[in-house]
Amino acid sequence: MIFYDCTTAPSPRRARMFIAEKGLDIETRQVDLGKGEQLSQEFLAVNPLATVPVLVTDNGVTLTENIAIATYLEAVHPEPALMGSTAEERAQVMMWNTIVDQQCALPVADVLRNSHPKMAGRALPGPDDFEQIPELAARGKARVKIFHDRLEQQLQDRQYLAINQFSLADISAFVITGFATQVGMPIPPVHSASLEWQARIADRPSAAV
Amino acid sequence: MIFYDCTTAPSPRRARMFIAEKGLDIETRQVDLGKGEQLSQEFLAVNPLATVPVLVTDNGVTLTENIAIATYLEAVHPEPALMGSTAEERAQVMMWNTIVDQQCALPVADVLRNSHPKMAGRALPGPDDFEQIPELAARGKARVKIFHDRLEQQLQDRQYLAINQFSLADISAFVITGFATQVGMPIPPVHSASLEWQARIADRPSAAV
Repeated sequence: MIFYDCTTAPSPRRARMFIAEKGLDIETRQVDLGKGEQLSQEFLAVNPLATVPVLVTDNGVTLTENIAIATYLEAVHPEPALMGSTAEERAQVMMWNTIVDQQCALPVADVLRNSHPKMAGRALPGPDDFEQIPELAARGKARVKIFHDRLEQQLQDRQYLAINQFSLADISAFVITGFATQVGMPIPPVHSASLEWQARIADRPSAAV
Repeated sequence: MIFYDCTTAPSPRRARMFIAEKGLDIETRQVDLGKGEQLSQEFLAVNPLATVPVLVTDNGVTLTENIAIATYLEAVHPEPALMGSTAEERAQVMMWNTIVDQQCALPVADVLRNSHPKMAGRALPGPDDFEQIPELAARGKARVKIFHDRLEQQLQDRQYLAINQFSLADISAFVITGFATQVGMPIPPVHSASLEWQARIADRPSAAV
């Protein structure tokens, strides 16, 4: 297997953390997004969508989305289970992972990509160029606040986000809320359940990757 | 189980088609989005996110995202397999389903929600109101074109989108590209592989739901 990574970006960090939780050692190649290496001919031959993470399996199948990479690794390395055990648990992990993607990861990206001067003309990942839309950055900020409230509500009586044990949904939410903190949208100080959850996940060795 | 549906909306149609392919008969309740029933106290008690589809399992677990509903039903009713059989197939179905979600369903929604007069002040699904952003509608149109090109390329030598048999990814792409057609963004006539695929899926009894 070959894992295409970028140590400075949140999206591949989700895959790195999943791989670390599984205890796997996968050959890794860095794609420097800061230098635009995702748009090089060499990398576009691997992934025409120009995104990381990418996992190429031993059979040469190219997987380009975090959920696809997690699904593959969970199937070939089932222990420890990170995507639920029962039918309902598997569905709940998938549900919360999707809610994090749509209601947190996407708005955070909307903020950064539509406001940062370095992202001018590059408001979406991928090979196609799009101009920034400042209203989208403002909307993203409002949506991240709403997500922080939902996260706090969901974590009121729970140790972990989706099920009664650590899962992929925790990885996704931990990485993305952590990245949001770095770019000026931290979990509010009054959200004590969320901050305790964040500290609980930060204690795991996989959080260091 | 109880399935919360809306016969006029594309998102719950994806779940309906999945249920039909599994040959299941699930107690169904209609939520009329045209009348705003998703924002009623009664429905918000079921799903505070104010979206359909929703599946409530026999154990009372509420599942609110298409991928969560599909994951649950695939686990409890494995035949016919709609999400792949091998590890790589499962990952490829998940990958293409995600690509359809992010690169087709989202841009189509961006177009409709940010341009239709009826959606003024309701530019995002859910309980929170957001104003329309006209530039987002324009960007959505450009992205749908790009997705149509990707779909055509992927279907050049294939009968189905993700793997060598019909899967959830075909359901998602078929429902969303069909909805895009209804709102003025059809697959271009020169995209013969995509149109053949569309006709192939339309022939399935599940496409009538």
